[in-house]
Amino acid sequence: GIGAHEVIIETPDHYKEICDLDSAHIELVIKAYYQRYVDLQGDSRFKYIIIFRNYGKDAGASLEHPHSQLIALPIVPKRAKEELRGAKQYFDYRGRCVFCDIITQELEEKKRIVSENESFLAFNPFTPRFPFETWIIPREHCSDFGHYAQSKDKKNIVELAKILKEVLLRIKVALGDPSYNFILHSSPLREKEMESYHWHIEIMPRLVGVAGFEWGSGFYINPTAPEKAAECLRDVKV
Amino acid sequence: GIGAHEVIIETPDHYKEICDLDSAHIELVIKAYYQRYVDLQGDSRFKYIIIFRNYGKDAGASLEHPHSQLIALPIVPKRAKEELRGAKQYFDYRGRCVFCDIITQELEEKKRIVSENESFLAFNPFTPRFPFETWIIPREHCSDFGHYAQSKDKKNIVELAKILKEVLLRIKVALGDPSYNFILHSSPLREKEMESYHWHIEIMPRLVGVAGFEWGSGFYINPTAPEKAAECLRDVKV
Repeated sequence: GIGAHEVIIETPDHYKEICDLDSAHIELVIKAYYQRYVDLQGDSRFKYIIIFRNYGKDAGASLEHPHSQLIALPIVPKRAKEELRGAKQYFDYRGRCVFCDIITQELEEKKRIVSENESFLAFNPFTPRFPFETWIIPREHCSDFGHYAQSKDKKNIVELAKILKEVLLRIKVALGDPSYNFILHSSPLREKEMESYHWHIEIMPRLVGVAGFEWGSGFYINPTAPEKAAECLRDVKV
Repeated sequence: GIGAHEVIIETPDHYKEICDLDSAHIELVIKAYYQRYVDLQGDSRFKYIIIFRNYGKDAGASLEHPHSQLIALPIVPKRAKEELRGAKQYFDYRGRCVFCDIITQELEEKKRIVSENESFLAFNPFTPRFPFETWIIPREHCSDFGHYAQSKDKKNIVELAKILKEVLLRIKVALGDPSYNFILHSSPLREKEMESYHWHIEIMPRLVGVAGFEWGSGFYINPTAPEKAAECLRDVKV
C-alpha cells in the first residue's frame, strides 16, 4: 500500500465555514486543491486523487475546524471506475460526452438549475441519490481537474469560487445548515484528456440516513424531486 | 415500477429488541421472513427480495418499534449483481463456491469466528468494511434462502434463531447497544440452485460514519482488525 492523505485548512478562523469566506479567499482554497493535485500527480505510484469535504457530524466530519481533504490512491477506486465506465459506454453509443449532453439538457429545461455563471453550472441532477444533491460542472468539456485549473483562463477559478460559495450558502440557508459531503470527481491521473469524461463536483447534503435497503441494494430512496429541490434552492435569499 | 414493501413486526412489546426475545420467538420471526419470501417469489414480476433490519437512529431506523423489512424489486439490484458476479468469477477460476472456501478457511484459522453451531457459523470477514462487521452463514451450501428455509430440516431454523440472538446480544453487550443494519443476501428469485452463490446475513454495526472518501471511492476505512473484533465479541459474557 502507498498513498497520501493531506488536510487543507481553509481558514485560521475556527468558526468560518467555506460559504462564509469571501470569494477571493475561496479561490485560494481551490488553488491549494489544484496545486497539491498537480504536485502529487507527479508521483507515478499514484493513480487517482480524490478531493472532498465533510461538513458536520452526520457527514462523518471528525474535526470541527474548516478543512477539506485530499487522498491520493495507488489504484482507481471502485466508484470512479463505475462512473468512467458508464460515461465511456454512453460515449461509444452516442459519440458525445454524457456530461456535455446533461449540461445541454439542463440548460434547455432550466427546471433543475440552481445557479449558473459564465464558466459553471450548478444543478440538481435528474436522478439524484439524495434530497438536494447538487452538482457543479464546468460548461467547457475537460476531464482533468488539474489540467483545467492550470491551463485555462484564471477567470474559471474565480467563477468556480463564486458558484461554490453561492451554492453552499443556498444549501445552508434553505436547509438550516445541514451536514454535507462534497466530492471532486476527476479523471485518473496522467490520463490524456478524455473525450468521454468531464470533471465536476458533487455536493450531498446529509438529510436522510443510509439504511439497510441502500446498503443491500446500492439503490437510494429519495423523497425529494430534483425540480422541487432546485426551486427551493433558487428561491432562497442569499 | 412495481414492487412490494412489507414490515415484519417482531413483537408486540415496544421495548424488546430482537436479541431480548427468546430463541423460539425468533424462530417465528424467521418463519415470517421465509413465508413472505416464498409467497412473493410467486409473483414473476419480482426479480429479487431483500430482507433487512435497521436498528437505531445511526442505522437509519425511522420507527422505534422492533421490526424488520422486506422489499421485493423488479430487478436484481446493483450490489447483489456485484456480489453474484464476483462469486461467479471465483467459481469459474477455482471450481468452488467462494463462500464455502471462506467457511473452510475460517474454521481452520479460528481467529475470526464469533460463534458456531451445528448449522451456522458467525464470523468477522477477513476484509470487513466496518468495525465489528459480522456475517452469519449456513455451513451447508445453498444459494436461496427461501429454498433453504423451506426444504431443509426444521433444525436449521432453530439453529439460525439461536446464533442470530447470540450474535446480536454479543454486539449489544460488547459495544454498548450500537445502531446496526443487518441484510439477508440471497440469490435472485426463481434461479435454480446456484453452485457459485451462498446465502448469508451481513450485520453491520454503525460505529463510524460514512464520509466523503467512502462515497467518492467505494472503499471503506476500518480502524478495527477483524481478529480483534471477533476476540472482543467472543470474550464478552452473554
